[in-house]
Amino acid sequence: MKIGFEVLGEDGATRARRGRLHTLHGTVETPVFMPVGTQATVKGVTPAQLHELGVEILLSNTYHLYLRPGPEVVHALGGLHKMMGWDRAILTDSGGFQVFSLRDLSKIDEHGVTFASHLDGSRHLLTPEKSIAIQETLGSDVIMAFDHCPPGQAPVPEVRAAMERTARWARRCIDARTNDRYQLFGIVQGGIDLDLRRASLADLTALPFDGYALGGLSVGESRAATWSTIAAVTPTMPVDKARYLMGVGTPEDLLVSVAHGVDMFDCVLPTRNARNGRLLTADGDLNIRNLKHRTDDRPIDAACACYTCRNFSRGYLRHLSKANEILFATLASLHNLHYLLDLMRGARAALDAGTFASYRAEHLLRRGVDPDDPTRQASSTPPRAAEV
Amino acid sequence: MKIGFEVLGEDGATRARRGRLHTLHGTVETPVFMPVGTQATVKGVTPAQLHELGVEILLSNTYHLYLRPGPEVVHALGGLHKMMGWDRAILTDSGGFQVFSLRDLSKIDEHGVTFASHLDGSRHLLTPEKSIAIQETLGSDVIMAFDHCPPGQAPVPEVRAAMERTARWARRCIDARTNDRYQLFGIVQGGIDLDLRRASLADLTALPFDGYALGGLSVGESRAATWSTIAAVTPTMPVDKARYLMGVGTPEDLLVSVAHGVDMFDCVLPTRNARNGRLLTADGDLNIRNLKHRTDDRPIDAACACYTCRNFSRGYLRHLSKANEILFATLASLHNLHYLLDLMRGARAALDAGTFASYRAEHLLRRGVDPDDPTRQASSTPPRAAEV
Repeated sequence: MKIGFEVLGEDGATRARRGRLHTLHGTVETPVFMPVGTQATVKGVTPAQLHELGVEILLSNTYHLYLRPGPEVVHALGGLHKMMGWDRAILTDSGGFQVFSLRDLSKIDEHGVTFASHLDGSRHLLTPEKSIAIQETLGSDVIMAFDHCPPGQAPVPEVRAAMERTARWARRCIDARTNDRYQLFGIVQGGIDLDLRRASLADLTALPFDGYALGGLSVGESRAATWSTIAAVTPTMPVDKARYLMGVGTPEDLLVSVAHGVDMFDCVLPTRNARNGRLLTADGDLNIRNLKHRTDDRPIDAACACYTCRNFSRGYLRHLSKANEILFATLASLHNLHYLLDLMRGARAALDAGTFASYRAEHLLRRGVDPDDPTRQASSTPPRAAEV
Repeated sequence: MKIGFEVLGEDGATRARRGRLHTLHGTVETPVFMPVGTQATVKGVTPAQLHELGVEILLSNTYHLYLRPGPEVVHALGGLHKMMGWDRAILTDSGGFQVFSLRDLSKIDEHGVTFASHLDGSRHLLTPEKSIAIQETLGSDVIMAFDHCPPGQAPVPEVRAAMERTARWARRCIDARTNDRYQLFGIVQGGIDLDLRRASLADLTALPFDGYALGGLSVGESRAATWSTIAAVTPTMPVDKARYLMGVGTPEDLLVSVAHGVDMFDCVLPTRNARNGRLLTADGDLNIRNLKHRTDDRPIDAACACYTCRNFSRGYLRHLSKANEILFATLASLHNLHYLLDLMRGARAALDAGTFASYRAEHLLRRGVDPDDPTRQASSTPPRAAEV
């Protein structure tokens, strides 16, 4: 099977799609949630455990790997897959989002972005060409174009300028490509301004990208604005290309966005929240550090099949968390990742069975969200476990 | 098989023994190294990974579990085995060593030790009776008597007084026992004074303990003194009872002490050193944080069969360590534990084959130690990997 995206079917009741992303490191069933391995590791989780979780693709980060250990080290260690012991697909972000997040540290011009390393203050330059070259050296299966991502609250002229620069840089990314062993995705910018979003999409779809991402969302705007932007933009995205919503990742975000036709997601939320003691369940989040879990011998979720829920109680997890034990990060991350991966496994099965609309509604309701207006809390079913 | 210790055979050339410790949570092949799970977890390692490593017994700590989460919580969560998801044997230290390590925090009298928690300064009292009661609540398979452990440099009168108190407390531990679902070990004190050691051993062997531990070693005295004490005391220990050398755990310590007839060991060394980047190999330790490992695509030890060495390079491990990634603690701990567990597996196989003397010599030599005088470096074979 040659690399690329394949739509297997479209939902009748929503705009959700079942698909497959074919890569040189295996096929990824979509819709899919991609765990984040910023520094060439999903924090606290071994590749063997990722396999057990059923992970088919994970995300890593050009900005971080460029600074440490450096692409020359990754190359010497056989590329990113070999280095981190991961034989399935890898998507790498371009570094655009990260360098634009370094406030006061960036000098931006048409050539690229000059920034100071968050590690040691050393000065560096990232350009579209350099980002693609680094990602090719890493050996990613999905490479992201280098984009200009403005802050969530930026005024329209700034958003427009960033969107226009993103289009010019996108062209340079396409031109910088040296091989076809990977898929190259363009990143649609334009904030929550629908005219700008449509203009950005038009610019990018004029270029031969293998997929299209929505960037610049969930960066400070309201959730209603995020979702209405997704709802408005996805219908105009190419139907035969993968659609990737970047950095978005609550269970509600995933359910809502899959229904709008998004295929791919990534977010640090499950692992970062895990390390802070915030655990995801079908019935709402729970904060395992709360005193009430002290002697609770039940698992986080009795219906959950993850290693953590099959073997450990809330009381033990609370103890590990309070004692700052490393094992807590591992067990909590395994659970949260399993929850989101399983939510997407269920979504794919529901799409295959033609029951996705009710799957979406049921899971939003259980999480205490009104399926007809997911920005509102459900009136009749307060979340049973929510407490954070 | 009823619980207890069984000697399977004695080495002809050394005083090493092959044995089995039978517990309600399985049989432990000896000589054995026990990983330390101070706070009811071996730091950074899941029970599934401990099983993969072949661990048959691990150690946990009465002092730490008493303070956090507290024995009542462990009890509510089904006992220590159930709580931590570990179905094999557990040995618990009595808390004696820990409370005597809290300098300036202890008030010691014949009744017990009053101390301030290292967590919050709250005042607590541990007595022989209380230590046994806590360990029975935890549900340990091997319970240690509550002893008085003097500092390594204590003057002889202080060592003598501690040794005599240890004997009186040992009697109280025996009397405090309420059931026979576990084995109760006495702890021989007396520092490096052989007369005191022999007196302590005589006191304790007069009591019906199921095994005997050597405490108060590796607490500041020279390694030569540690080993000569072990060499002098072990021949007078009961042959039909397990012998446990507490808190001792370099590869050299294990090889030398097994030859003197020690059956059981525990030490935080493999996991603590792992977290600090110091990795054990047959040819000496290496510090993975050194620059020279930056682009080294070889495993820590090409001959090692552990998960880490089968999947990851020195260069990647150095990266994880420099980036302070949680996964580093896990992968490094898995390797170091595997090394010590495998060293003991090899020792048992050599004992079964009647080749332990040469196994001991070969492994000491490879570690750069003179087998005829392990306190000296081998003259002919400088350690190949030693660099720390």
